[in-house]
Amino acid sequence: MKIVSSGNIHHDITSRLEERFQEHEFRWHENMSQAEADLKDADVFITYGEDMEPWHVESASRLKWIMIVSAGMDEMPFRQVAAKNILVTNAKGIHAIPMAEYSMHMMLHVARKTAIVQQQEKEHRWSREPVMHELYGSSLLIAGAGAIGTRTAKLAKAFGMHVTGINRSGGESPYFDELLHVSKLPEALHTADYVLSILPKTAETKDFFSLEQFRQMKQSAVFINMGRGNAVNEQDIITALDEGEFRHACLDVFNEEPLPKEHPFWAHPAITVTPHLSGISPMYQPRAMDIFEKNLTVFLHGNGEYINQVDPDRGY
Amino acid sequence: MKIVSSGNIHHDITSRLEERFQEHEFRWHENMSQAEADLKDADVFITYGEDMEPWHVESASRLKWIMIVSAGMDEMPFRQVAAKNILVTNAKGIHAIPMAEYSMHMMLHVARKTAIVQQQEKEHRWSREPVMHELYGSSLLIAGAGAIGTRTAKLAKAFGMHVTGINRSGGESPYFDELLHVSKLPEALHTADYVLSILPKTAETKDFFSLEQFRQMKQSAVFINMGRGNAVNEQDIITALDEGEFRHACLDVFNEEPLPKEHPFWAHPAITVTPHLSGISPMYQPRAMDIFEKNLTVFLHGNGEYINQVDPDRGY
Repeated sequence: MKIVSSGNIHHDITSRLEERFQEHEFRWHENMSQAEADLKDADVFITYGEDMEPWHVESASRLKWIMIVSAGMDEMPFRQVAAKNILVTNAKGIHAIPMAEYSMHMMLHVARKTAIVQQQEKEHRWSREPVMHELYGSSLLIAGAGAIGTRTAKLAKAFGMHVTGINRSGGESPYFDELLHVSKLPEALHTADYVLSILPKTAETKDFFSLEQFRQMKQSAVFINMGRGNAVNEQDIITALDEGEFRHACLDVFNEEPLPKEHPFWAHPAITVTPHLSGISPMYQPRAMDIFEKNLTVFLHGNGEYINQVDPDRGY
Repeated sequence: MKIVSSGNIHHDITSRLEERFQEHEFRWHENMSQAEADLKDADVFITYGEDMEPWHVESASRLKWIMIVSAGMDEMPFRQVAAKNILVTNAKGIHAIPMAEYSMHMMLHVARKTAIVQQQEKEHRWSREPVMHELYGSSLLIAGAGAIGTRTAKLAKAFGMHVTGINRSGGESPYFDELLHVSKLPEALHTADYVLSILPKTAETKDFFSLEQFRQMKQSAVFINMGRGNAVNEQDIITALDEGEFRHACLDVFNEEPLPKEHPFWAHPAITVTPHLSGISPMYQPRAMDIFEKNLTVFLHGNGEYINQVDPDRGY
């Protein structure tokens, strides 16, 4: 097999794989420009998923399997992939740990008035006036109840929060206090102290959170977006914050990334901007390539089940 | 009974107690100067514990019970209290929730390079270079394994941390991965990524963490003190940080509080100063006075057990 990568995989991982699968040929590249030439006779392609154009897929005549070492697959040319019946697997699940930690951090960051406490520290001013709110007993609403939402719910429950999930089917879950159908969103927004969006980027999720939703939130509520930027109407969130419809927003994802320097989010006093780093971690590649390695064994021996097989017709 | 308080208790709590215990006399004061005059014939005294002088105890000839609505009792005149056989109860346990949340916040705050990310935000600079470390898989060492340490361990375990407790007896606990005797501190310091002190202020804990202990820590380790300031040698911690013996310190307690404006901790780049706020919460008084109310029922009816009875000979 010829296995090609455009993913700039770390040396300790690549040498371990070459050691273990010596009879196969690996071509490790830092990016797609370098990798393109090897695609024409690649059997397997490892990619972060945002660098494949439809023509890449069409010209890779021997390509049997694409391993996407990320979970966000908005840019994959799925139509061409489906047409050629190429196996697709991804790294869904590996973002759960770092993203759950990001969301707990953001909630504590805002609840414990970090910006004010730091300002006091800068002024050498000893003041215990800023009110320290507890997460204990407060309520968290999570839109998007997959692996990441589940891990976040687990952490939030440990803190003693009440956790509600919103998805397209409702149902039950051992991790959420309740799972509601998306039609129940308005009432759920009324009572949430923290609203967390982990919604993927699809046609249905565009502007999921607009002025109407922000108006239904508590004035004291905090909104966090670590899914995809399209789920938030960017003009509306500024309007809503300026009108005091809710208290603060922590945004990790945006319609345009990198967020342009002049974008009003950067300096808005009620918005915390983080540069799409919620899923980043030193454990990212080890976890993703561990999935690849397990799937490679299945691929080569034809037995067992693939981890995270993607249906190209659905796109995730 | 005449029940006197110097604790500036909130009106919703005082009116509820007066409604429930109508046959008794309550005298609610904002501080000790106001309360002193009522002490001479008080049966019960409610205090934060830092305003009682030995002469207060000696002149309160009818005093039977002191309810300390805090957990730190360094300033209580225990000798006089013991001599008069006065019952003492405190609010131990009510700090567990807010302090555990403070410690998780500090760990996430440092692990996720908050100061750097905020600086980038201030400059409108989109950079994902700062390494986001996970708490998952890292190790936490807690010195002082009581109610607060136990709650913190619970949260840390939910994050997937390995949690070690240090106390004076060793033993086992369902909340810690292991509980070590204080003689094992050096080895424990070698492997900890986060070292948390919740040690009370006693003669034995003075300078518990000095240069020798800081030198045993990993260079990448983070130290957090939310117990009492005497446990840290203040000159040594600066020396240790300047020499790179460990990475960062989050300090909430100090030998002198308020921390003087000119103290070198304020501006030190490797130290985060918070103004003894880890135990503060809007739920503080409700929790403390709930303990008082339950103990008052026992006190008046002579049946049941007191919550948090303190041995004046031990001081806690």
